[in-house]
Amino acid sequence: MQLLKDRIRRDGKIKSGDVLKVDSFLNHQMDIKLFVEIGKEFKRRFAGCEINKILTIEASGIGIACIVAQYFDVPVVFAKKSKTKNIAGDVYTTQVESFTHGRTYDVMVSKEFLGAGDKVLLIDDFLANGKALEGLAAIVKDSGAELVGAGIVIEKGFQPGGDRLRAEGIKVESLAIVESMDETTGTICFRGDR
Amino acid sequence: MQLLKDRIRRDGKIKSGDVLKVDSFLNHQMDIKLFVEIGKEFKRRFAGCEINKILTIEASGIGIACIVAQYFDVPVVFAKKSKTKNIAGDVYTTQVESFTHGRTYDVMVSKEFLGAGDKVLLIDDFLANGKALEGLAAIVKDSGAELVGAGIVIEKGFQPGGDRLRAEGIKVESLAIVESMDETTGTICFRGDR
Repeated sequence: MQLLKDRIRRDGKIKSGDVLKVDSFLNHQMDIKLFVEIGKEFKRRFAGCEINKILTIEASGIGIACIVAQYFDVPVVFAKKSKTKNIAGDVYTTQVESFTHGRTYDVMVSKEFLGAGDKVLLIDDFLANGKALEGLAAIVKDSGAELVGAGIVIEKGFQPGGDRLRAEGIKVESLAIVESMDETTGTICFRGDR
Repeated sequence: MQLLKDRIRRDGKIKSGDVLKVDSFLNHQMDIKLFVEIGKEFKRRFAGCEINKILTIEASGIGIACIVAQYFDVPVVFAKKSKTKNIAGDVYTTQVESFTHGRTYDVMVSKEFLGAGDKVLLIDDFLANGKALEGLAAIVKDSGAELVGAGIVIEKGFQPGGDRLRAEGIKVESLAIVESMDETTGTICFRGDR
């Protein structure tokens, strides 16, 4: 998605430790006009797929998922993160290791809102090691719902998550795949345009 | 907002301890069509107000804020919650006590995304004791931005937050104000329709 790549090149900041900061438009301040274009693009990439629910994970996936959902005309469910072991009620739960935050979360979705018959699109802002997306996929599997695919705004193609999930047969559509980035020159290379 | 009140009466669940569970449409599963109507209603209530930024707080405010922002044509900034005392970088920060979760959070917004000249609308899903909204208002004040008002989906009118914030001169617009609710009968009374 050229608009997104241009924006990442213009406003993204490369930090040490393979960190790409895009908090001016994606995950702290959110450019809703850009999100609208992202929504249209995901609709195009998943055209013809039957989808009745979008699943994302708090916090930064929520805004994108809600705007995207308008183009699929479906509700959004967001998985909640908890650091306690005491999860109340009737929930699907799994553990997700976060490299960014250096800890492990319990992630949960109420059984009320996901189950057999649901056709689920996962949406998230970032895909790097793929732990969050794997956790969401595990929850979808547990629930008996069908996983239609995953729509990702930015994938770090030099980390193994995306390729591993594709190898597992999941349709992963990333709107910008960063192949490499250089902190000193500020250069970002994307996987071949589409 | 009649559509919202009807939905709360139909799908809201009253639990002990003055808890109103609306997680089937507002803050776990999210009904985006309802959010669109909420967006239009906030636009109507803040018509004529100059607003260039929406500020909310993670996690459940984010989805509503993003849909609402489409009607104001402005970006959204969400305040991040942290339980650590080590807040990195150049941020505005304040403490917010959560009655629901029984703990105190540090809440932060990067100084890059809020400052003098900004005209800010706060958006959140719930207003009860008002601690989250007070925290956001404090951050707006610290930043030198102007607080235009606050748009709340559900206010618990029997808890003191809303009336206290109005007494402080903040324009608080709540789309449904619950005056009382009865766990045994399942009855919910709203403050006079408008």
